[in-house]
Amino acid sequence: MLNKFQIEEHVKHALNEDVNFEDITTDNLTDENDKLHVVLNTREDGVFCGKTVFETVFEILSKDVEIKFFVNDGDEIKKGQKLAEISGSARAILTGERTALNYIQRMSGIATASRRYQDAIREYNVRMVDTRKTTPCFRIFEKYAVKTGAGNVHRYNLSDMAMIKDNHVKFAGSITKAVEKLKKSISHAHKIEVECDTLEQVKEAVECGADIIMLDNMTFDEMKTAVKYIDHRAIVEASGGVSMETLKQTAATGVDIISSSAIVAKAPTLDLGLD
Amino acid sequence: MLNKFQIEEHVKHALNEDVNFEDITTDNLTDENDKLHVVLNTREDGVFCGKTVFETVFEILSKDVEIKFFVNDGDEIKKGQKLAEISGSARAILTGERTALNYIQRMSGIATASRRYQDAIREYNVRMVDTRKTTPCFRIFEKYAVKTGAGNVHRYNLSDMAMIKDNHVKFAGSITKAVEKLKKSISHAHKIEVECDTLEQVKEAVECGADIIMLDNMTFDEMKTAVKYIDHRAIVEASGGVSMETLKQTAATGVDIISSSAIVAKAPTLDLGLD
Amino acid sequence: MLNKFQIEEHVKHALNEDVNFEDITTDNLTDENDKLHVVLNTREDGVFCGKTVFETVFEILSKDVEIKFFVNDGDEIKKGQKLAEISGSARAILTGERTALNYIQRMSGIATASRRYQDAIREYNVRMVDTRKTTPCFRIFEKYAVKTGAGNVHRYNLSDMAMIKDNHVKFAGSITKAVEKLKKSISHAHKIEVECDTLEQVKEAVECGADIIMLDNMTFDEMKTAVKYIDHRAIVEASGGVSMETLKQTAATGVDIISSSAIVAKAPTLDLGLD
Amino acid sequence: MLNKFQIEEHVKHALNEDVNFEDITTDNLTDENDKLHVVLNTREDGVFCGKTVFETVFEILSKDVEIKFFVNDGDEIKKGQKLAEISGSARAILTGERTALNYIQRMSGIATASRRYQDAIREYNVRMVDTRKTTPCFRIFEKYAVKTGAGNVHRYNLSDMAMIKDNHVKFAGSITKAVEKLKKSISHAHKIEVECDTLEQVKEAVECGADIIMLDNMTFDEMKTAVKYIDHRAIVEASGGVSMETLKQTAATGVDIISSSAIVAKAPTLDLGLD
Amino acid sequence: MLNKFQIEEHVKHALNEDVNFEDITTDNLTDENDKLHVVLNTREDGVFCGKTVFETVFEILSKDVEIKFFVNDGDEIKKGQKLAEISGSARAILTGERTALNYIQRMSGIATASRRYQDAIREYNVRMVDTRKTTPCFRIFEKYAVKTGAGNVHRYNLSDMAMIKDNHVKFAGSITKAVEKLKKSISHAHKIEVECDTLEQVKEAVECGADIIMLDNMTFDEMKTAVKYIDHRAIVEASGGVSMETLKQTAATGVDIISSSAIVAKAPTLDLGLD
Amino acid sequence: MLNKFQIEEHVKHALNEDVNFEDITTDNLTDENDKLHVVLNTREDGVFCGKTVFETVFEILSKDVEIKFFVNDGDEIKKGQKLAEISGSARAILTGERTALNYIQRMSGIATASRRYQDAIREYNVRMVDTRKTTPCFRIFEKYAVKTGAGNVHRYNLSDMAMIKDNHVKFAGSITKAVEKLKKSISHAHKIEVECDTLEQVKEAVECGADIIMLDNMTFDEMKTAVKYIDHRAIVEASGGVSMETLKQTAATGVDIISSSAIVAKAPTLDLGLD
Repeated sequence: MLNKFQIEEHVKHALNEDVNFEDITTDNLTDENDKLHVVLNTREDGVFCGKTVFETVFEILSKDVEIKFFVNDGDEIKKGQKLAEISGSARAILTGERTALNYIQRMSGIATASRRYQDAIREYNVRMVDTRKTTPCFRIFEKYAVKTGAGNVHRYNLSDMAMIKDNHVKFAGSITKAVEKLKKSISHAHKIEVECDTLEQVKEAVECGADIIMLDNMTFDEMKTAVKYIDHRAIVEASGGVSMETLKQTAATGVDIISSSAIVAKAPTLDLGLD
Repeated sequence: MLNKFQIEEHVKHALNEDVNFEDITTDNLTDENDKLHVVLNTREDGVFCGKTVFETVFEILSKDVEIKFFVNDGDEIKKGQKLAEISGSARAILTGERTALNYIQRMSGIATASRRYQDAIREYNVRMVDTRKTTPCFRIFEKYAVKTGAGNVHRYNLSDMAMIKDNHVKFAGSITKAVEKLKKSISHAHKIEVECDTLEQVKEAVECGADIIMLDNMTFDEMKTAVKYIDHRAIVEASGGVSMETLKQTAATGVDIISSSAIVAKAPTLDLGLD
Repeated sequence: MLNKFQIEEHVKHALNEDVNFEDITTDNLTDENDKLHVVLNTREDGVFCGKTVFETVFEILSKDVEIKFFVNDGDEIKKGQKLAEISGSARAILTGERTALNYIQRMSGIATASRRYQDAIREYNVRMVDTRKTTPCFRIFEKYAVKTGAGNVHRYNLSDMAMIKDNHVKFAGSITKAVEKLKKSISHAHKIEVECDTLEQVKEAVECGADIIMLDNMTFDEMKTAVKYIDHRAIVEASGGVSMETLKQTAATGVDIISSSAIVAKAPTLDLGLD
Repeated sequence: MLNKFQIEEHVKHALNEDVNFEDITTDNLTDENDKLHVVLNTREDGVFCGKTVFETVFEILSKDVEIKFFVNDGDEIKKGQKLAEISGSARAILTGERTALNYIQRMSGIATASRRYQDAIREYNVRMVDTRKTTPCFRIFEKYAVKTGAGNVHRYNLSDMAMIKDNHVKFAGSITKAVEKLKKSISHAHKIEVECDTLEQVKEAVECGADIIMLDNMTFDEMKTAVKYIDHRAIVEASGGVSMETLKQTAATGVDIISSSAIVAKAPTLDLGLD
Repeated sequence: MLNKFQIEEHVKHALNEDVNFEDITTDNLTDENDKLHVVLNTREDGVFCGKTVFETVFEILSKDVEIKFFVNDGDEIKKGQKLAEISGSARAILTGERTALNYIQRMSGIATASRRYQDAIREYNVRMVDTRKTTPCFRIFEKYAVKTGAGNVHRYNLSDMAMIKDNHVKFAGSITKAVEKLKKSISHAHKIEVECDTLEQVKEAVECGADIIMLDNMTFDEMKTAVKYIDHRAIVEASGGVSMETLKQTAATGVDIISSSAIVAKAPTLDLGLD
Repeated sequence: MLNKFQIEEHVKHALNEDVNFEDITTDNLTDENDKLHVVLNTREDGVFCGKTVFETVFEILSKDVEIKFFVNDGDEIKKGQKLAEISGSARAILTGERTALNYIQRMSGIATASRRYQDAIREYNVRMVDTRKTTPCFRIFEKYAVKTGAGNVHRYNLSDMAMIKDNHVKFAGSITKAVEKLKKSISHAHKIEVECDTLEQVKEAVECGADIIMLDNMTFDEMKTAVKYIDHRAIVEASGGVSMETLKQTAATGVDIISSSAIVAKAPTLDLGLD
């Protein structure tokens, strides 16, 4: 994920957003040849994420910025830890600082939340993943941060997997009809997931051959029953109202996947700064 | 803010991000002429924000979606409240749902946090504003949400106001030299703010004619002394470590502005959904 | 597929490519209010594809063009058949004609080739699909044309399915190690396909749990053996050197999918014209 | 043609189209530092075309890919011939392979068809050229391939030459009126071509001063008569229904130019591959 | 020229440039439903140009702006004349005013200068045209304004006509070699112009078959001699140091075309305003 | 101003505009390895502006162009002076020449006009600045040129300062109401300017706390009275009908700022050329 050529376009937009006509403070108070040496520190414990984006911001602004990182994406970092040294063009460093931090504070915040959720269920063979509840035009960075933190992600978009929800069922007639119709009409390269609110739906979904079955907002008992019924004939995903408190119990039901928007949508940014 | 022609470009990118080749579920399970009627509800108390963006998502997808809103941006909304009715093309509604919600959940989350902070200091003549700590390429939506919630914002970018930080002072020689240099070199249309850590800096900044003085991470006593010293010769802004707990005391020091990244960077999304 | 808002961007680029500064012939020989009535005919038998794109070209050029189609995407059309009537602004029709035809001639050519291949194996329960050998920046139109003609497509891109080729195997150590590594590291939403040249590879791939097994350039006998061995534990895809001549025999081996780049990369355009 | 800065934009779009979120196979099975050495071979005889685009694909993906070409654009290549060696980042090579090949297979296919047509009429002083029937948003690559193969091309777009067709004549009143009107209203920098179906039209066109006269779908005898009549007062172009079979006879009529969409629109891709 | 879909992209960029985050004055002092009625007047005599662009600015900003024009592009306008009435959304009118005027003031300025130059030589059969000295990214509007004012333009860009300058001659060996090489290698659709400083060069250029001969910075006598020598075998263009003073004498030499960058690069804007 | 990454996008657009398919003259008359050495001279006295843009044009076209500048932006240059030496790829130099010159001729023209205006009032403590009357999509280059020539600029756009004009006053009720409303609703980071036609308006504006007061089209006597009345309580800006003739008298009235669109909109290009 995060190929350089894709990052660059995004970063240029972000820099345009923040610089607009010029950094009137820096451009007028520094000289083209002034140099600066700063250190990237973390002011909170967490999981670091965003090395390449951070570097790209300064590469776009100047050829004269050297960055030496002491951590990699996915590393646990401790309050006060030195993460990188940045030296070179004072203008580039001062102008790019905020944009660079905006990327990695958000990405590290999400990586941290994702890691914490995954850690809480380490003893179970369960994967913590995200959803499509992401910030518009920022998904690739958020998906990457979730993978960095938790180890994996859910589908990327509407195109790479089919997800049958209640409204789809209504139009198709039944879960079975929906699955059968999709099996004919979508590519053999794509999987089919069915969102189920009840055990009856679970039964229907597994019998008609869904690849993944989502247990939506079920009780722990319902989940256990569903897992038992499904019996490895489909991947089982728990979703809805997942929180740190309920996480372990959900994992203990035997589901394969727990998905939650909280690790992206409710993750606070991680406090990183240049000193 | 949020002119239609600017929103449209952003929303098209966001839809491309989510739709990519096609919504394989919806395109294959619904008919081009299928109709749907859904309701936008809130599942939490908060401040609504994002009406125009929400409408734009569906306008881009189809000419056949009607949306009737019962709230306006800035309205306080209560858990369970019906915010809008959406009816028309089932395809457009199902395909656009997630993207539309992604915008307004984040915007309403920020508006809500901003309102809560501003409400906490209603009795004082103080403005709660944001910072430049925003999500890259999403700032205009976040700034708009802060204004919707709190009533106002800080500068938009590096171009519309000068902000002298410690590194700038180092290059200029002193606060006074920095302010004087900027007064000569930036447009008369732009203000100058000086970030001050100590009372000495405050004194120097006010004497040399700064328009805005930022009290950065000062104690309540320091702030009071600073406010007294400045005596309306400059706008006074408190910043750094602002939280719901310290907000009132900060406001009570007599500052004009309190700025905090928390209302954007740490605001959880508001739980809105289509039913 | 082919959401209007996505088509529009592409068509605008295409029109810019062809119009550049202006259609010097039409702009200087016609009046802004001149009207024209033309008919879209086919000069060959085939499968029609591209209605929406065709309409979009003229919508972008003028509000004053009416198009009445007598066929739908996927319809078999016969040499000489009238497909549509176009009337309105002479300028828009003359300027847009070539671009509009360039889209539908290529799309109908691909739809026709795809249909012919699929038709040749109608009696078998086999799907004819394409590959990623498409024209750069034109894939969505080509994928849509294949789906229109043959009924389905292969994966869209490198992101929506894993495909293990020999070089990947080399880096992973073995097919088994590659599949196991991917099962851990890719999303549960995505399938894994393994490209196999030999029956040993097929055995290894099916045992380690590949979702799809590609039989690459195998003889008919090898394919039959492979199909038997796999025994519905994975989807079986035949690929490599597929031609109209070998198609039926390939289908008769019992594979589920036949993929070929020929239906896109070697499909001649269909001769459609405005009269 | 094919300036680097123009190619780059196109290639980035093409890579985005194919990579989308990530190459899930390669990113998860290879290491950032894995190296690969592959060879670009041709599996068919033909004319090579696309060296710079091929290189650009990998340059965009990584600084760590070295390409050594043994052929140049326009070279005749023989089945089994080694065209280039590519070594460096395994990720870049595996991820970019398909996109790079998609460009050069199509370009070499068109160059080959163009060369074959031109070769068939080498003994005559006639130029084989293309038309505006190109793949939308891919014209520059197709025009370049035609020039590489056949030596020249027709106009680029609607802006760089005037071409009077029957509908234009209808609006202008007559060929003569159309030519006269254009002579007044288009730039002196641009030529005027008239599409003629009959000898009467040819006569009118040449008398009123057309720069180029297109003989559209005429018999060989008509063409000969036209060429004689025109007598070098205008460039003569034969068009319509041109095929390998009729090519020589067309050339023998004495026309200066033969234009055909077949060398682009019906050219199969050339089978090139990485081993 | 100036197809709507091309104008729109440009105008959106221009509005983004001027609006950025928001029109802070108008957005905060007017209501969404406030209406305004203003009149577009000219404060100078001149030639009007830019109707469609002017309309497009307000169309992009709001559906609620009605514009009634009393003049057309190319009309002579008199100081104080009412050109149009604009009524509707106060916000759209106030926000778009400057951008809309920026287009038409510059376009009308160029149209006016172009008309004055052309008028000065009305009695001669000579065309006044521009050059490629245009404002980067604004050429289409400037070319259109020249055509509106003077009736015609020179080539659009480097792609639609060949122009042999001294450096090209140096590389080719001689004018004759350059022309011969181009006749073989450029499309038959494109003309060849040769820039000549001396009569020897003129002779060589006309003998080897140049389509257009540019007399660069010649005296009136040299021009007359050249025209006589060329004797309608090529189009003759005078260029270099053209001014209002020398225009008539230049025209009197018998040249066909006079080209000058002054009508674009030195044309002052025309004073138009909303009242 | 003029960050490299922002310039590059603009220059690529400009080169596309001028090159389109190819530079048919240069590409066909020069060899890929041909070298050229040219000199950038000025043919007029003036102020140079545009070094970085000039360099960027050739950097985008080729890695093989070396440019050595003997002047910097803002330097006074004399007719015949050598400004730079350019050597390297003949193709890049010949193809990029016109675009590179188009930027710097216009920028230097504006810098020259701005310097002349500022020079005329050097003895007064007054700043000459521009307005928002710029060429659409070219403002950043024009603002930069004004700053290079005159030393400063007015606001960049509608977003970075509030400017109350008569129509705004009408909607707000009075100048006082407008200023009060803005003080509440715009950011504390932004200033408020009021456009005044009469002394009564000036008085009202200064009493209600406007930051900047524009004296619009006032007589010299009115301006003097206004300056005296305002007495440093606000910045005073003279605007309207400013010309070289009236400049000194305007400056002598005691205003702080003189703004005029003439230095951009009416500035002729400076005659620079490659020899």
